[in-house]
Amino acid sequence: MNASSHPPRCVVLDWGTTTFRALLVDANGSVLDRVETPEGIQSVPKAEFETVLSRNMAAWRIAHRVLPIYAAGMITSRNGWIETPYVEAPAGAEALARAIRRMELADGGVIGFIPGLTDKGVQPFPDVMRGEETQLVGFGLDHEMAVVLPGTHSKWARVGGGRILRFRTFVTGEVFSVLSRHSFIAQLAKPLAEPQPAPNWSAFALGLDAARERTQASGLLSLLFSVRTGWLAGNLGAAETSDYLSGLVVGTEFHEAREMGWFEAGDRVGLVGGEHLVEVYGRAATAFGLEPQLGPSDAAVRGSIAIAEIAERIGHAV
Amino acid sequence: MNASSHPPRCVVLDWGTTTFRALLVDANGSVLDRVETPEGIQSVPKAEFETVLSRNMAAWRIAHRVLPIYAAGMITSRNGWIETPYVEAPAGAEALARAIRRMELADGGVIGFIPGLTDKGVQPFPDVMRGEETQLVGFGLDHEMAVVLPGTHSKWARVGGGRILRFRTFVTGEVFSVLSRHSFIAQLAKPLAEPQPAPNWSAFALGLDAARERTQASGLLSLLFSVRTGWLAGNLGAAETSDYLSGLVVGTEFHEAREMGWFEAGDRVGLVGGEHLVEVYGRAATAFGLEPQLGPSDAAVRGSIAIAEIAERIGHAV
Repeated sequence: MNASSHPPRCVVLDWGTTTFRALLVDANGSVLDRVETPEGIQSVPKAEFETVLSRNMAAWRIAHRVLPIYAAGMITSRNGWIETPYVEAPAGAEALARAIRRMELADGGVIGFIPGLTDKGVQPFPDVMRGEETQLVGFGLDHEMAVVLPGTHSKWARVGGGRILRFRTFVTGEVFSVLSRHSFIAQLAKPLAEPQPAPNWSAFALGLDAARERTQASGLLSLLFSVRTGWLAGNLGAAETSDYLSGLVVGTEFHEAREMGWFEAGDRVGLVGGEHLVEVYGRAATAFGLEPQLGPSDAAVRGSIAIAEIAERIGHAV
Repeated sequence: MNASSHPPRCVVLDWGTTTFRALLVDANGSVLDRVETPEGIQSVPKAEFETVLSRNMAAWRIAHRVLPIYAAGMITSRNGWIETPYVEAPAGAEALARAIRRMELADGGVIGFIPGLTDKGVQPFPDVMRGEETQLVGFGLDHEMAVVLPGTHSKWARVGGGRILRFRTFVTGEVFSVLSRHSFIAQLAKPLAEPQPAPNWSAFALGLDAARERTQASGLLSLLFSVRTGWLAGNLGAAETSDYLSGLVVGTEFHEAREMGWFEAGDRVGLVGGEHLVEVYGRAATAFGLEPQLGPSDAAVRGSIAIAEIAERIGHAV
């Protein structure tokens, strides 16, 4: 536990599909302590969410008594603990705070589930997010711009005037992951004894350019075969195929986003996420003529605390 | 073995990644007998191709002595028995026949490897096919039209004037397969006790329409998330997600092919493949305003025999 002059204020819970992550934070949003386990929601039976939470909070409960817990992300989804209704975009932090769902726990504590967002304007079905809304609040909603949250299911959101205005999901990370692990691309990279220590940025740039330029109007389904043909032609080594694929799919995400009107060359674009993905997407943004503006690395915590503070101010405290 | 008035003429070998398939055919191209085993090239060490072939041919050798063998497909690739150089498109059956590579076998027989094709005009790297060229020859190259060969790696080829003029690969089947088995889509369908007995064509059509209409200029990476949002919104049952996904990716293949100039509405398009894929692609072709013209189901055998006959005529017999 860090030394800190501020006492803990609350617990911010990021309980996702594959990981349980709880942060003990003070009033400034500083993280005092953290618990992380592989007890993601997909491995926890519905009846045992409270037991897992209680066990993982035990040390903090002894040290600090009961603290309010704010949870966001997939824990509020249909496969999670409780399914909270989505708040409709456009929506700001106050709308999210008002929609927090409280639940009393057996140990006397209270957990507040921060809801996800839906964008009913998206075709063919309304789009959804759970968890990314706290990152967007933590990034800041005042200046109008597109904000990209790269990940398994990347989100592009338009923010401005204190609200998340609209958003769209791209399954880029998942397409990259399943193709690099289970397709002909996995076969190409199989002879490599070790995973590569660092990205091969020139292979990434080659894939990015192919997706950006789309010579011969190629789309993703035909471009993907170039991982094989590049290897056959001797233009891509086995060790380069994975980063080339990464460039192809991330470049395709930016190409699709541009076609959909998410940006024009010269725009500033917000970027929030882990270090590696921010570097990958920052390079892609620059290649597409954008000026990336990096959000804070703890945007999700900041956003959760901002929403918690509003909830308290409007008398909807946990 | 079928009763037949014609004696066997040769063996047509279709030795692919996951399956060994040998056909005993007569001079009319009728299949007299077949051997099929799961000894695909990926499971056979390089030194043992001849042993496996010899064992699987043993009964035919006893009955008919040594017959010429014509092999096409992945057996001639870098991971196969021998890697034959590609013939460059445009090319017709005679160019393929001239490039057959002969190899004498220990049992006194001879195998002729029919080469694959490359299209050096494709960007960013030359495209390739191995095996599909025999299907195209079997379909017929005289009338100018686009011919689609659906599969793990679908091929679109332009044929005419006795030649395969150009072609392009789309990895549609592989994207469908890895996403339906390893992604969030697999999670959605997991509660189903049994695989569905027949395609749900209305779910397929829904996905096809989403890919064809591209409302809001959506591309594949954003459309794929609609499998989840359609399920969340109650518009897609868990049992429908797989066929909806199939419609999305096949529809995207046709959309991409149209953008690349492979067809315009009203065109006739050839279609060669297995029964299920021909139905799937036939429905997609019709939805895109095309008039599908089905090739013979034994196009690969017909093509191999046509190429073998040319080889004999030009003195390049196996």
